[in-house]
Amino acid sequence: MAEIESNLPNLVAIASNLNRVRSGIITLLTDFGTEDYFVGAMKGVILQRFSQAVLVDITHDIPPHNIPAAAFTLDAASRYFPPGTVHLAVIDPGVGSERRALIVASGDHFFVGPDNGVFSLVLSRNRDALITSITNSAYFLPDVSFTFHGRDIFSPIAAALARGEPPDVFGPGVRDPVALEWSRNHLAADGSLQGSIIHIDHFGNCITTFTLKDLSDGGNGEFCFRAKGTAIRKLLKYYEEAGPDVGNPFLIVGSAGFLEIAIARSSAARKLNLAVGTPVSLEFC
Amino acid sequence: MAEIESNLPNLVAIASNLNRVRSGIITLLTDFGTEDYFVGAMKGVILQRFSQAVLVDITHDIPPHNIPAAAFTLDAASRYFPPGTVHLAVIDPGVGSERRALIVASGDHFFVGPDNGVFSLVLSRNRDALITSITNSAYFLPDVSFTFHGRDIFSPIAAALARGEPPDVFGPGVRDPVALEWSRNHLAADGSLQGSIIHIDHFGNCITTFTLKDLSDGGNGEFCFRAKGTAIRKLLKYYEEAGPDVGNPFLIVGSAGFLEIAIARSSAARKLNLAVGTPVSLEFC
Amino acid sequence: MAEIESNLPNLVAIASNLNRVRSGIITLLTDFGTEDYFVGAMKGVILQRFSQAVLVDITHDIPPHNIPAAAFTLDAASRYFPPGTVHLAVIDPGVGSERRALIVASGDHFFVGPDNGVFSLVLSRNRDALITSITNSAYFLPDVSFTFHGRDIFSPIAAALARGEPPDVFGPGVRDPVALEWSRNHLAADGSLQGSIIHIDHFGNCITTFTLKDLSDGGNGEFCFRAKGTAIRKLLKYYEEAGPDVGNPFLIVGSAGFLEIAIARSSAARKLNLAVGTPVSLEFC
Repeated sequence: MAEIESNLPNLVAIASNLNRVRSGIITLLTDFGTEDYFVGAMKGVILQRFSQAVLVDITHDIPPHNIPAAAFTLDAASRYFPPGTVHLAVIDPGVGSERRALIVASGDHFFVGPDNGVFSLVLSRNRDALITSITNSAYFLPDVSFTFHGRDIFSPIAAALARGEPPDVFGPGVRDPVALEWSRNHLAADGSLQGSIIHIDHFGNCITTFTLKDLSDGGNGEFCFRAKGTAIRKLLKYYEEAGPDVGNPFLIVGSAGFLEIAIARSSAARKLNLAVGTPVSLEFC
Repeated sequence: MAEIESNLPNLVAIASNLNRVRSGIITLLTDFGTEDYFVGAMKGVILQRFSQAVLVDITHDIPPHNIPAAAFTLDAASRYFPPGTVHLAVIDPGVGSERRALIVASGDHFFVGPDNGVFSLVLSRNRDALITSITNSAYFLPDVSFTFHGRDIFSPIAAALARGEPPDVFGPGVRDPVALEWSRNHLAADGSLQGSIIHIDHFGNCITTFTLKDLSDGGNGEFCFRAKGTAIRKLLKYYEEAGPDVGNPFLIVGSAGFLEIAIARSSAARKLNLAVGTPVSLEFC
Repeated sequence: MAEIESNLPNLVAIASNLNRVRSGIITLLTDFGTEDYFVGAMKGVILQRFSQAVLVDITHDIPPHNIPAAAFTLDAASRYFPPGTVHLAVIDPGVGSERRALIVASGDHFFVGPDNGVFSLVLSRNRDALITSITNSAYFLPDVSFTFHGRDIFSPIAAALARGEPPDVFGPGVRDPVALEWSRNHLAADGSLQGSIIHIDHFGNCITTFTLKDLSDGGNGEFCFRAKGTAIRKLLKYYEEAGPDVGNPFLIVGSAGFLEIAIARSSAARKLNLAVGTPVSLEFC
């Protein structure tokens, strides 16, 4: 009985994935940087196994071993790709240890990478995702190293998936992927909503855990947003709306749907000395 | 009458663009950096709309909001691409404001981006370029954000252009694109030619506003070039020509056609403390 | 006689290369960085000459003019690509001087770049490689600059090779490529093996000139590895094997086959103040 149950997600996966389209696109997201041979070797392996693959870099500049940043970036970028795209996400401090390797089939997309929370946001969006544990070594490179599964395991698996193999050929279904305790907002005793900064982008805009809904929940009252002693009472639609009032921080609804702290043509992070993890709060008058 | 005249460039555009070839190549040039999800999302949108697109990054490391650097790089790189290539240039501090979005059809190439001067050099090379203001929202993503038109407007437009649509389907013709006051040299009272440094490359070579013509205009006399107290009297053909004389600065005709200040196997910018905007002068003995 | 002999490698090349397959893939490895127009211009030229080319960046972040780092990276990445791939390697401080330009046909792969030692590791792996000196200017861009042969010579040659031209059409065979005095280990008077650090990767792992064989040559005795006053007596299989013992350095067999100095989830280079060239030693108790 237990065996049948543990195979159940797998059987469903077979049925629903066999006919799924493939776009031939494989995206790559890692914390490998771009100065080493790592990314090149992965692309070589993919093209060896699937010469028609269309390779697209999401980024290789995730801060080393930073799984939350990878989870955020993977979710924000992957939704814009065509159905049948395979997203390879290798942020893998546990490489060589007992941590599992996963395939996540969510909606029309496939995700491949280590089971360490990197798929948390993708999975939080789709409770019906089908998850496979990668165990079928017939697909791996002949000599699997202890330190570079991105090249030796994940790349050939991504190539096989993109070529059309259904996920269940790679191993059994699983139901308990590692999930990040994703940053949640909470109401403080004084009635303010407490959150934090989850990402700082290239321009120094600080992405918070708040959304536009948190603002509108306050009704039509004026809001006061606080981050490290700086109070912000202005919500703008776009950066240039600040006009000549350059230098003052404001809130804006960022392109990933979260409230961001911004300063027109400048870096809010540097000017206000904000970092990932800095607490922020929101209250209404 | 005024209406007819304003439609004229558009009519010409229809005639001349309908049969223009397309290479299927889309190049990308932004100031987005490579650590965020921005570039990945743009590529996903393009591949959703045109699955055969061949994507080539020019650079995403334009200094944030630096339109002159983007104009220089776009011009220097784009000329080497096949006819019918679409060049997407998104340096867009004014995103969300009233600034126009443009398509420039110049020679055999198409350029797509905000109307903020990023096409200045391309346009200075071709007075007959046909310019379209992007207004047809049927081509945009369904939900256009206020902060990321690179993803929501420019990427789907580039995909449609690369797929073969003529520019005029996207909006009316325009004749008054924003043009940068491009750095011009001028003669000083003492007879010297005054210019400046417009770009510093990865190796620390300092690209100036002077060309080989400025040197030959001085006849066969010896020249004296000055930058921040450093006097240079030597023009070399290639870096290694400096021979054992390593450490001394010299001029060289760079690969984009401008005179550069260089030091063999070293960074002239760092050694001589030069920056973008540093004035330079040229006189003859 | 001398003439016949000097043509011999060439004739062999003709015979063995005419029928060689091509993958259509061209990889790019340079020290150009990614902030300039250099890499974009090279890709434009390649696509002009061979529109079906599949372009893959290995890296453009080789430290400026660092030929050993380029030789290491080229060798480590290239082996994973399909047969018939063309690898373009442009680290070229001698551009414009008399240094030769080479094509190396080694095994199933082609390598294109300046004759300055960048192919040393590839050649050390295959003594039967066929080497061609690029002299046939019919394949170059019409105007060859003195400072950017990556764009004007190497890119069009790579495109022609990838399209299927045999190497011998580009020039005569050569037998004396520049070879780096590759870092070799040696036995010191006290019986210890002396080597050095050849590369530091994105994570701060320090790749040494030692391999697992050097360790096993010491029999089953305990080893003592030294780098700048730090003694290491532990060899792990993977990074997480360090367990809670975070912070202490250990050795690991890296994915390129060399012994690396590592610290779990941290940078060994920074923590131990190690750099490329730092001497390391190995002795047995």
